[in-house]
Amino acid sequence: MKLTLTEPKFLKDSISIISDLVTEARFRFTPDAIELVAMDPANVAMVIFKLLSSAFAEYNVKEDIHLAINMNDFKQVLRRAKSNDAVTLETEDNKFKITFKSNTIRTFYLPIIDVDESEQKIPDLSFKATITTTAAIINEAIEDADIVSESVTFDIDNQVLTISATGDLSKATIRIDADNDTKIISDEKVKSKFSIEYLKKMIQGSKISEKVLLQVSQDYPLKLEYKVLNKVQLAFILAPRVDND
Amino acid sequence: MKLTLTEPKFLKDSISIISDLVTEARFRFTPDAIELVAMDPANVAMVIFKLLSSAFAEYNVKEDIHLAINMNDFKQVLRRAKSNDAVTLETEDNKFKITFKSNTIRTFYLPIIDVDESEQKIPDLSFKATITTTAAIINEAIEDADIVSESVTFDIDNQVLTISATGDLSKATIRIDADNDTKIISDEKVKSKFSIEYLKKMIQGSKISEKVLLQVSQDYPLKLEYKVLNKVQLAFILAPRVDND
Amino acid sequence: MKLTLTEPKFLKDSISIISDLVTEARFRFTPDAIELVAMDPANVAMVIFKLLSSAFAEYNVKEDIHLAINMNDFKQVLRRAKSNDAVTLETEDNKFKITFKSNTIRTFYLPIIDVDESEQKIPDLSFKATITTTAAIINEAIEDADIVSESVTFDIDNQVLTISATGDLSKATIRIDADNDTKIISDEKVKSKFSIEYLKKMIQGSKISEKVLLQVSQDYPLKLEYKVLNKVQLAFILAPRVDND
Repeated sequence: MKLTLTEPKFLKDSISIISDLVTEARFRFTPDAIELVAMDPANVAMVIFKLLSSAFAEYNVKEDIHLAINMNDFKQVLRRAKSNDAVTLETEDNKFKITFKSNTIRTFYLPIIDVDESEQKIPDLSFKATITTTAAIINEAIEDADIVSESVTFDIDNQVLTISATGDLSKATIRIDADNDTKIISDEKVKSKFSIEYLKKMIQGSKISEKVLLQVSQDYPLKLEYKVLNKVQLAFILAPRVDND
Repeated sequence: MKLTLTEPKFLKDSISIISDLVTEARFRFTPDAIELVAMDPANVAMVIFKLLSSAFAEYNVKEDIHLAINMNDFKQVLRRAKSNDAVTLETEDNKFKITFKSNTIRTFYLPIIDVDESEQKIPDLSFKATITTTAAIINEAIEDADIVSESVTFDIDNQVLTISATGDLSKATIRIDADNDTKIISDEKVKSKFSIEYLKKMIQGSKISEKVLLQVSQDYPLKLEYKVLNKVQLAFILAPRVDND
Repeated sequence: MKLTLTEPKFLKDSISIISDLVTEARFRFTPDAIELVAMDPANVAMVIFKLLSSAFAEYNVKEDIHLAINMNDFKQVLRRAKSNDAVTLETEDNKFKITFKSNTIRTFYLPIIDVDESEQKIPDLSFKATITTTAAIINEAIEDADIVSESVTFDIDNQVLTISATGDLSKATIRIDADNDTKIISDEKVKSKFSIEYLKKMIQGSKISEKVLLQVSQDYPLKLEYKVLNKVQLAFILAPRVDND
């Protein structure tokens, strides 16, 4: 296989975000895309990543290749890419080879590792409420909530998304109404509670796209999705916190 | 009461500066202004803060209200204000309610706390020397002094302000002559010594105003004042260090 | 002696870089230049610094003066210089006196210290390979190598400089070909290995000049030199790491 990106931004940002959630992961290189589906070590969050062949200047994958690497190592290497570097991904001598080409040729070799676990399946979820809005609004709401608590509630009722957090003595409530920037489609009133620590890692997806798709149901996992048409998709599924308060 | 600011900068910066000196404090909301007079926990420094009703877009306070809150909590909430947010301050259900309104409505509730101590009185001080100068000059002098010692001497003599610090082996001396930027009015030669740690917190007042009023006497407290006409006043009184050197 | 610089940048940057390698050092003020030759405490690296009299607005040194000071103190004082400050260096009452003059006069006095060791001699080295290239290329290569190992190999062969590092499992290789930016003159194939920790301090010399002169031989010290014609020269000699791998 040999893949070359002339704009390393999508790969670089995605791997940096994913490495905050997942330590080691198996990539699937198919003739159409690089794909990754992985759980965080605590089994609370799933990452779904797809970088389409159309995002590449050169994309040569004959048959499916599975290849696991340490995500932090990969992040550190990609960080070294300058915006004008052409980035090539290959395998060589059972190593994962990453080459940056501009006025110099810089080559990194990372070990291919063994990952015991069987391949992750994307769960078949059905959501009651779907919101599309600007990533900035969601980022801000999560950071607001972060100053009063460790968990946050998403509440969708009648064209209004309310994000709220309750601390020992303080409280934060962010009300987001459907408008030009925000579309809310929901069958019924739903409410679920999530870890802010995880959400803060996931909303880094705003580096990929300034729009976000948010899907919620009653006491049910949340799905957060950042997408650039024909290029990249980065989605997260987060288990709810089901406690009584 | 209900108060709305369309430019949160003065409140945000002032609370951030004050919270470095004071942990909990009682605000006085009067029909004319928000006021705060508080001592730092070590009783070395006093903060005097006044945000005038004319700084607000909406200012509705019928009678004096005393209301104590944790300054760090307040700072953290105000930090979340964006420059285009309208910031509303209210009380609701015995909580202090802060609302940011732009394309979303973000509401924070902070607990109103009990502060035992009686109200602080601003001491009646009379100074021998009064200097008005640019905040940048004073900031620079304090930061210069900081690299050689933990205390700094202000010396006013014959139209010259000398700020100096003496370390074990090193020494720093900053000479500021009266000129277009700096006015010095003094009856007699005066000299006082102060903690640099405190001064470094106080000179953050330069975020409020680029001019500063400095008042000094012989072995006597110092007063530092930052002011924007008809809007805001932030002043500090700092006890001198009286040691023999 | 009395020396005045109207552009403190070269002195400020050089002292900041040198102080990362050398704690105390003896300067030689001659009628032509300020000079410093010093070893780091571990005796692995030598610094050679020369700031020519032509870099100064006023340069008055009648006879050679030797003067040792703490490099960190000197760095901290020079950091306080603003770009529009005229910086004067003098001796007064057996102290080293540094004055910054703009709208205020700020004076620092640093102790002159005793340094036991005899004067450092610049070793007489002869190199097999000489490379001139942009400092950015070398900086990037060292930072690339830093993510996989603690040491780096410079390999010059037939108009190609290869900088490589090998970690436990990962590897980085940077290939720099002779071109418009990079001149490589070498008699024979040479290769030497060096500490990345030291190199990272030395490549800060890129603040002085965007070009760098690099000299290497087989298992031999490396010389790195940053120079601005008629103004300043900052060079480093680094002992090789001779281990077997």
